[in-house]
Amino acid sequence: MKIVVHTDDATQWRDALSEALPNATVVTSDAPEEARQDADYLAVWKAPAYLLKEQTRLKGIINLGAGVDHLLGTPGLPANVPIVKLRDAGMSEPMADYVLYGVLHFYRSMDRYAVQQANAEWQPQRLADKADWPIGVLGLGAIGAHVASALQQAGFPVLGWSRSPKTITGVQCLHGDEGLDKLLGQVQSVVTILPDTPATQSILNAERLAKLPKGASVINPGRGSLIDEQALLEALGDSATSGHLRGALLDVFCEEPLPAKSSLWQHPRVVVTPHMAAPTPVNDAIDQVIAYLHAFEAGEDLPTVNPTQGY
Amino acid sequence: MKIVVHTDDATQWRDALSEALPNATVVTSDAPEEARQDADYLAVWKAPAYLLKEQTRLKGIINLGAGVDHLLGTPGLPANVPIVKLRDAGMSEPMADYVLYGVLHFYRSMDRYAVQQANAEWQPQRLADKADWPIGVLGLGAIGAHVASALQQAGFPVLGWSRSPKTITGVQCLHGDEGLDKLLGQVQSVVTILPDTPATQSILNAERLAKLPKGASVINPGRGSLIDEQALLEALGDSATSGHLRGALLDVFCEEPLPAKSSLWQHPRVVVTPHMAAPTPVNDAIDQVIAYLHAFEAGEDLPTVNPTQGY
Repeated sequence: MKIVVHTDDATQWRDALSEALPNATVVTSDAPEEARQDADYLAVWKAPAYLLKEQTRLKGIINLGAGVDHLLGTPGLPANVPIVKLRDAGMSEPMADYVLYGVLHFYRSMDRYAVQQANAEWQPQRLADKADWPIGVLGLGAIGAHVASALQQAGFPVLGWSRSPKTITGVQCLHGDEGLDKLLGQVQSVVTILPDTPATQSILNAERLAKLPKGASVINPGRGSLIDEQALLEALGDSATSGHLRGALLDVFCEEPLPAKSSLWQHPRVVVTPHMAAPTPVNDAIDQVIAYLHAFEAGEDLPTVNPTQGY
Repeated sequence: MKIVVHTDDATQWRDALSEALPNATVVTSDAPEEARQDADYLAVWKAPAYLLKEQTRLKGIINLGAGVDHLLGTPGLPANVPIVKLRDAGMSEPMADYVLYGVLHFYRSMDRYAVQQANAEWQPQRLADKADWPIGVLGLGAIGAHVASALQQAGFPVLGWSRSPKTITGVQCLHGDEGLDKLLGQVQSVVTILPDTPATQSILNAERLAKLPKGASVINPGRGSLIDEQALLEALGDSATSGHLRGALLDVFCEEPLPAKSSLWQHPRVVVTPHMAAPTPVNDAIDQVIAYLHAFEAGEDLPTVNPTQGY
């Protein structure tokens, strides 16, 4: 069995896979072309097109992350090779921590205290009951469902939304266009953890952002394409004029790295983080990849990605 | 039974107590002197000296908060009147949220991302394992113990410290001077939730701050007197020179409101909040106050404050 690995820390992945699968040949994508050819499996994150094109006998592709939009959009992706992805390889906990931090940032008025601090102003803000501070979570896959549960356990009422109906204990689950409007109309923060698909692109456009209550905030640790960035900037207002929305915590952007010229960097009510909310932890993910490889080899049924749905 | 109430929202307290105790006379401290005299009980937060001095037949004083340092330091406090305090009237949850926010702020490098954002710099920082990010909690009263447990449940190793030995599931509990040194030597963040007593004043002085690992942070939602502010500033360095410590999240100060001239306001690695970490929620606290009043009237044993210990 030959496996070609392409990701930021490919050497670490190669060593871990070699140790776990002593009979496999594991090479990184910077190995010579002849060493890469005729692989049985690719284990890749943001693979270059040539790596996909040069393969002739692939049995499977393992996407080393939860989002497959990059892979599905890469020219040269063979049409009939099954794709699996890391469904929740230890990414849920850092994602839930990131979102909880963002929710507390607004709920506890840390954004307002930062402004006050700059002016040496001492003014406690009223602390709302959590019961009056509902949070909306868009996207209820493995990670989104975990985030929704974590927020609910932290004491916030949680409304979840997905394309198809779901059930999560303690979370009011909605679906469809009508469900989305219902959710947006009543949440203090909206969290976007949807995959990047044609159906989710700019799902938070100007019209939907306007449906949020005045003073609501946006937390996006999902995909940059989910939010119309220009519409978000307009809804936020500027340093002189407060807008419909209170603020945003953004980890992902339409273009990454976020271009230096983007107004988001300097906006006083936007917190920018560099796509760090849920890094893939090697140690947790490796077990899942090995399980996938064994299942492929044994011809077992696998939860493959549906390229038409995009997840 | 006559009760005199003195606190920021005294009217709300008076109305709630009157409703719960229809046979009691409940007045606020701004009532005329004759209406305030000969009270059976005071229910007070930061009471003025005259309110204590004018009373002649008090059966008990209920401190409407967890910290009794102000009350014990007020001239005119009668010597032999038993004092009880709110031991955890719904303050644990907002306190734990505040501390978790602060721990995540440093653990997730939100302080560094804020600096990067100002420079439009896109640079993900390595995310440490929580197992390598121990937190120290000084003070294991009702609130401190809750905070320690909440951090442990969030996945961090937690070391707790108190004057006398305690046991908390999942928390490594230390005590005494030796225990304090041991804790300080290994934590990434130290959280101070001790009462203000002669034994805790400046417990984090220059010498003890130097025992923290380089790059550690300080979170103080307890009492301002616990930290030597000048020593903290020196340990933090300034905008030009990074110091031994990475940063601080401070909610309480030696003088409150924090004077405009304090260097803490403008320090680039200090987050200042205006004593908002754990407001006393009226609805939760009222039940405890009523229980205290019934116990006083019934002559039951009460967990009274020891003025010598200061808590």
